[in-house]
Amino acid sequence: MREKFNSFIKNLQTQITNRLCELEKKNDFKTEKWFRKEGGGGITCVIENGLVFEKGGVNTSEVYGKLTKSAKNQLKTKFENFFACGISIIIHPKNPMAPIFHANLRYFELYDDDNNIVDKWFGGGMDLTPFYIFKDDCIHFHSVCKKICDNYNSTFYTKFKKKCDEYFWNHHRNEARGVGGLFFDYCRENSTMSIADWYSFTVEVGNALMDAYIPIIDKRKDLNFSHKNREWQKIRRGRYVEFNLVHDKGTLFGLRTNGRIESILISLPPKVKWVYNYNPKKNSEEEKLVKLLKEPLNWI
Amino acid sequence: MREKFNSFIKNLQTQITNRLCELEKKNDFKTEKWFRKEGGGGITCVIENGLVFEKGGVNTSEVYGKLTKSAKNQLKTKFENFFACGISIIIHPKNPMAPIFHANLRYFELYDDDNNIVDKWFGGGMDLTPFYIFKDDCIHFHSVCKKICDNYNSTFYTKFKKKCDEYFWNHHRNEARGVGGLFFDYCRENSTMSIADWYSFTVEVGNALMDAYIPIIDKRKDLNFSHKNREWQKIRRGRYVEFNLVHDKGTLFGLRTNGRIESILISLPPKVKWVYNYNPKKNSEEEKLVKLLKEPLNWI
Repeated sequence: MREKFNSFIKNLQTQITNRLCELEKKNDFKTEKWFRKEGGGGITCVIENGLVFEKGGVNTSEVYGKLTKSAKNQLKTKFENFFACGISIIIHPKNPMAPIFHANLRYFELYDDDNNIVDKWFGGGMDLTPFYIFKDDCIHFHSVCKKICDNYNSTFYTKFKKKCDEYFWNHHRNEARGVGGLFFDYCRENSTMSIADWYSFTVEVGNALMDAYIPIIDKRKDLNFSHKNREWQKIRRGRYVEFNLVHDKGTLFGLRTNGRIESILISLPPKVKWVYNYNPKKNSEEEKLVKLLKEPLNWI
Repeated sequence: MREKFNSFIKNLQTQITNRLCELEKKNDFKTEKWFRKEGGGGITCVIENGLVFEKGGVNTSEVYGKLTKSAKNQLKTKFENFFACGISIIIHPKNPMAPIFHANLRYFELYDDDNNIVDKWFGGGMDLTPFYIFKDDCIHFHSVCKKICDNYNSTFYTKFKKKCDEYFWNHHRNEARGVGGLFFDYCRENSTMSIADWYSFTVEVGNALMDAYIPIIDKRKDLNFSHKNREWQKIRRGRYVEFNLVHDKGTLFGLRTNGRIESILISLPPKVKWVYNYNPKKNSEEEKLVKLLKEPLNWI
């Protein structure tokens, strides 16, 4: 399973960067390989200052060895030998009318002292963070999410959509990071899903990522925008930074397992502003977003 | 002691904003009062988009009531009735040749169920975060720090300078946030210092803050700078954000005690950039800073 999933995410990484490149005329992805002293490493693909993508990262990594104490606490486990591999995608478009896209797929194994597998699970998801609300985009995104889920279990979409809303809740701001999507974690074999089923579910999510995002970025990338729209984008990106550095378990896990800092923090937006107590004008498009993020919506 | 220190920090707030205003021709501090549902409140003084100060905050607050569970854990106490008051200053100058200034003074009391004081302590400090190193500035800043300390105890400067270097260590980057200063915390009465002594020490630190910073900002505010210098400033401000949101206990305490978010996050810089794996050129002024932050220096 380790090798199977690892080779899937490596292929997916190439497919995704290729599809994103088709939209981009100016810049291309740069690829960097890195190695982790304690075991494993990764491939970081980054684009910066493109015409469409102001910053984007498509990263795979495969790390193994011994969990640090704080990583053990985070996973609530007594075992310390682990293997984890995953792919992360983060896209910060230049046009403020286009949303930030984020996705992640991961596979985890824990071992006892004799290297027997004692636990294994899949996790992942995708979510959208718009600066301006286009209902069509939200509905399209969630429809792709629901379609994959419904192939497996009619309860999955509702369950994983809710988990996504909960996970990406920006507690100290009392608002959602974005309009959600899917989030699933600790997906272990159970009476209805074998680990092979979870593998194929995770693979289907992976294969659908660009079907979920490309039509949206394609529709929004060339829309007109003003300086004011761009300022709003930078201010809202600040909230994205706050979530990722204060609350995001994935980021904190990376920092705790001596992950490669530059690959982990590729998620941080390129240009950000913090303005004291900024409140959008009444009945503006900006205020509509803020109100909408106060309570997760059912898009379908 | 509560009232005495509280009235000191309120006066200090006015003095500091007045002295900063003397340097600023364009904009002025805006003052906002806020109240905390659970008890207390504060006064937030903010300047934005000045000619000298791109963003600055001089805040006082006084909060009391019951500690939340996570705040109790942070303070490692079983008592839950508390009182805390303090002043925080954060200055983000526009000119990249001028350093960020940060200072904080605070007083804490804990009570048992019958409202008897069971613990009380002072804390505080000041520190400097330059984008370009001017040795004179660092020496001047540390000299002011040392002079106050030496009035009380010949070991204080070395001790509190070291604590500052430790506290403002940006662990995941393995570098210092800046060039340090003073940091003292949990200063309780002991065989050599009564609580009245700690009060007067903290007051002296407060009264010296502007003597430490004004000569520096005054010398650097009108220096020429290039677009490249400004870009470097924005990138380094990113590290400041990372420290404050990932490691700073003060920020996290604020978020955990339902402090006023906009007053807590006033510390975040106005304009910030995250560039993937940015490394300054060999032997550049930018590289000099990075190298210097790898290990705390003795400036005096």
